[in-house]
Amino acid sequence: MNGRGRRWGCVKGGRCTRIVRGGTFHAFARHNLEVGTLARPGPGKLQFIPLGGLGEIGKNIAALVYGNDIIVIDCGLAFPEEDMPGIDLVLPDIGYLVEHRDRVRGVFLTHGHEDHIGGIPYFLRQIQVPIYGSRLAMGLVELKLQEHQLTLPERSRAVKPGDVVHAGSFTVEFFRVNHSIPDAMGLIIRTPVGTVVHTGDFKFDYTPVDGNVADLATLAAVGREGVLLLLADSTNAERPGFTPSEKTVGETLERIIAGAEGRVLVASFASQIHRIRQVVESAVRHGRRVAVVGRSMENVVQKAIELGYLDFPPGTWMDVDEIVRLPAHRILILTTGSQGEPMSALTRMSTADHKKVEILPGDTVIISATAIPGNEKNVARTVDNLYRRGAKVFYGPQAGIHVSGHACQEELKLMLTLVRPRFFIPVHGEYRHLVHHANLAKAVGMDPSHVLIGENGAVFELTRDSAAIVGEVPSGKVLVDGFGVGDVGNIVLRDRKQLSNDGILIVVVGMDGQSGLVVSGPDIVSRGFVYVRESEGLLDEARQRVKHTLATLEADNLSEWSMIKSAVRDTLGHFLWEKTKRRPMILPIIMEV
Amino acid sequence: MNGRGRRWGCVKGGRCTRIVRGGTFHAFARHNLEVGTLARPGPGKLQFIPLGGLGEIGKNIAALVYGNDIIVIDCGLAFPEEDMPGIDLVLPDIGYLVEHRDRVRGVFLTHGHEDHIGGIPYFLRQIQVPIYGSRLAMGLVELKLQEHQLTLPERSRAVKPGDVVHAGSFTVEFFRVNHSIPDAMGLIIRTPVGTVVHTGDFKFDYTPVDGNVADLATLAAVGREGVLLLLADSTNAERPGFTPSEKTVGETLERIIAGAEGRVLVASFASQIHRIRQVVESAVRHGRRVAVVGRSMENVVQKAIELGYLDFPPGTWMDVDEIVRLPAHRILILTTGSQGEPMSALTRMSTADHKKVEILPGDTVIISATAIPGNEKNVARTVDNLYRRGAKVFYGPQAGIHVSGHACQEELKLMLTLVRPRFFIPVHGEYRHLVHHANLAKAVGMDPSHVLIGENGAVFELTRDSAAIVGEVPSGKVLVDGFGVGDVGNIVLRDRKQLSNDGILIVVVGMDGQSGLVVSGPDIVSRGFVYVRESEGLLDEARQRVKHTLATLEADNLSEWSMIKSAVRDTLGHFLWEKTKRRPMILPIIMEV
Repeated sequence: MNGRGRRWGCVKGGRCTRIVRGGTFHAFARHNLEVGTLARPGPGKLQFIPLGGLGEIGKNIAALVYGNDIIVIDCGLAFPEEDMPGIDLVLPDIGYLVEHRDRVRGVFLTHGHEDHIGGIPYFLRQIQVPIYGSRLAMGLVELKLQEHQLTLPERSRAVKPGDVVHAGSFTVEFFRVNHSIPDAMGLIIRTPVGTVVHTGDFKFDYTPVDGNVADLATLAAVGREGVLLLLADSTNAERPGFTPSEKTVGETLERIIAGAEGRVLVASFASQIHRIRQVVESAVRHGRRVAVVGRSMENVVQKAIELGYLDFPPGTWMDVDEIVRLPAHRILILTTGSQGEPMSALTRMSTADHKKVEILPGDTVIISATAIPGNEKNVARTVDNLYRRGAKVFYGPQAGIHVSGHACQEELKLMLTLVRPRFFIPVHGEYRHLVHHANLAKAVGMDPSHVLIGENGAVFELTRDSAAIVGEVPSGKVLVDGFGVGDVGNIVLRDRKQLSNDGILIVVVGMDGQSGLVVSGPDIVSRGFVYVRESEGLLDEARQRVKHTLATLEADNLSEWSMIKSAVRDTLGHFLWEKTKRRPMILPIIMEV
Repeated sequence: MNGRGRRWGCVKGGRCTRIVRGGTFHAFARHNLEVGTLARPGPGKLQFIPLGGLGEIGKNIAALVYGNDIIVIDCGLAFPEEDMPGIDLVLPDIGYLVEHRDRVRGVFLTHGHEDHIGGIPYFLRQIQVPIYGSRLAMGLVELKLQEHQLTLPERSRAVKPGDVVHAGSFTVEFFRVNHSIPDAMGLIIRTPVGTVVHTGDFKFDYTPVDGNVADLATLAAVGREGVLLLLADSTNAERPGFTPSEKTVGETLERIIAGAEGRVLVASFASQIHRIRQVVESAVRHGRRVAVVGRSMENVVQKAIELGYLDFPPGTWMDVDEIVRLPAHRILILTTGSQGEPMSALTRMSTADHKKVEILPGDTVIISATAIPGNEKNVARTVDNLYRRGAKVFYGPQAGIHVSGHACQEELKLMLTLVRPRFFIPVHGEYRHLVHHANLAKAVGMDPSHVLIGENGAVFELTRDSAAIVGEVPSGKVLVDGFGVGDVGNIVLRDRKQLSNDGILIVVVGMDGQSGLVVSGPDIVSRGFVYVRESEGLLDEARQRVKHTLATLEADNLSEWSMIKSAVRDTLGHFLWEKTKRRPMILPIIMEV
């Protein structure tokens, strides 16, 4: 079937795909390393092993290993790339951690975004260790666990900046950073080899919405004490300058909402609670009540209200069904769909396909987010459809209605300068981001040999005065499709891609089990190949070709099924390529009768 | 089959898909208009009918109709969207023109880009009329026609700015504009109702590479004479300010090439001949010889040399095989792949998959283009892979190595101000671009009722003092897949999408033609659904379910095939959704034996 094989290859980017089913791992690693030998660094040696988030954006998870102890930093998921049709989620391969599960002392969450907590339900099915994170992150984890009918492991607890957790040889102190979700924190991890600082996702916001500025003083103090290793967020390492304060967005939103005459709809990320708070403050100020539409937005806002992150009088909120009773200028709708996701609330509203809300002329729609790479066309399509329905639309980077949650180059240099690490490994970024971040470290004076770039699976080993990549552990993508975790791998994806490009032709032949003679067929059925009614001649001719091939084989007394199938595939493949320049999947089915 | 039906619906965006096969048209138009009645405007009436390029970027083509005469402006193609798997090209539906082919007087090309000339070979198979365009555009059309074994229609000819062509009631004068390809022109079309100005794709470049500045004087003069209708490029209508001169790119490229120590590779659009000229000038200045790699770049550069657009001494160029004989600092490679297209030269080089050139540490790679929406991730992946191979990479909007070929807001306002049209229809842009452009026209003082927004298929009718959309003609997408033009439509695409999301299960049942009894099977074969070896239990159980369903039907003496097929589909569909939350295509095949 055009190169299909039974062996597992590697997916693009060089990482390997593994299969998880029913909790058992079947590893198909590119490098058949003896994981055991790497997993226990020698005395005086510390290992940093990223299993996700390096060389990619998403599914952040990393291990820090000393002696018999392992701690895990974050446990995220990623969203499927366009070359993964039908896939819902992508999980990191945590085979390495599962193998050493008795040595894992805990999971430390930097914040509550999906790419930092989304993998936890899958992780907990295999490794039961305490989880530590901010109150909000823990609340969002609990939401997730409820969906999976799981509960938090014993001794898990919410922590706040300044809290210290002891975990085997590690002492983990949380410190405050700014990010696009409240209560984001970095980690100061004291180890027998030296201190490791992990920034989590961060930016510096001197005028944050909740007044909680990133803890520069602690960073400076720990930098002065001496830091062995800095692990820092590289997402925006390509961007010069600094990321503006979230407050600037609030000011623009206020101006837009103040000037709007009809209804206002605001689409944003559900976890952007500071943004939501600013929107609701403006709504209150201008006499608008707020309805929340879209499953994730409803869940997260509910949780945030519960935990006190959104503290408004009860009359602020209303059910979406109430909007019919209010005049337009008293309505603000908070919704999902800022990425133009086809099934999201805003997208459906923009095509009059949402059951409760339809966009009307006079509506003001604010898309308060940036298009994540890969989503640009969907967002553009949504904007077009909003305009077609007569709405006024605010969107895009020039509208001043979104700022990034990640540090730009000047902030990254500030972090490097405050922490003054001996060694530096850029994390959280695609390869080019890691390269740019490494270059910034060199620009602020770090010894180039102390700056290491590696990707998922790399085993970085540090002593007090050395750092190097000493090996690799299995890492990669575990694909989730519906209920199936890991039962879709490279072969299935390859088939899906072939099917989607040129469709399938099924050739059915009935064969007498005794004589080996064709007694029925060949019949040809196609899907996704050509519009059949228009192409009857082509399919007729194809059937004649197959018939001829079968007759030739019969004349030669060749009745081995594999031989017949391969002859049918060859005949048909060549014929169709010649006639159509397409390569549909060809599936011969021989039925013994 | 989950909602599959035999009726043709409309594709996203409201436009309709038609089918073309063997030169015959089968129209499935949403609005069953009597095309004939619309096609001949009454006396003193002029119609503008866009068939492509309004409400979308790409496949620009429009008709201007007066009395018995029709002229066609441009004849482009578009590239497939992500929801068109397997499709190679998208053509405009020209059924309206084919129906009135005896009244078409000619095709007027504004410039030689694919989205303005790419549809010509398909057009000429149905309508033989003269084509007029710049020497370069005509050269590129000829390249295209050679591939299709066609020749230019009689009386076609190359024109230059200032040339006038008479075509029925129309007199068409070409005028110079600036764009990202040499010799781009707009059209001043004199009609019995008034003068129409069509800008083509344009920007104003006061310091163009070839010294040919857009013809402001002629625009001002025709504006003073009086213009009935302006049709102007909206591509960049979202962007404030003005587009910088192509010269600024040359200066940056010169700095990078001057400072490069190893080989230099430059990826750009093949048709960006001014860009290529500037790169080659820098190469010559710094003692580098130039190899051209990538089919489209080779063809276009060859044509441009032939036509005198790239006038360098012969020793400037070299065959790619010669690069092994030269030191790195004497090599510059011009190549394709600026959009990260998976099969392009640069992409292959970046993954060591190109048969002649591999990226090496020390190489400098310049991606002198911007990512077209939808290509961002492919470009990013290529940049990552180039960095992984140790190259120095220049890319992205901040590098100063690319400028747009389209006018930004200040230039659009200048155009409106020079031409001073009575009526204005923004063209060439997605819906939001048309809205922004319309707003600019109102901002410079146009009467809002004189600014009309419409999309493909709209019939705009103008008199000397009125303009309105009076109807619609069929318009839409004709999909090209391999040799097939129009044999892939909505049903095939829907099947491909379903196949790519969840794969297919084929259920084969052998049935006695006489008794209606099942004599063989059911057998189940799946592709793209689950990894079979891991899911034998699931497929076994599925087979049992089908067996049970068949037995029940047999017991009830129900042997009508359609009933059996639908029962099998229902049983299996429910079972698989329950077990996997997936909806593969289910294809029951009954074989009479």
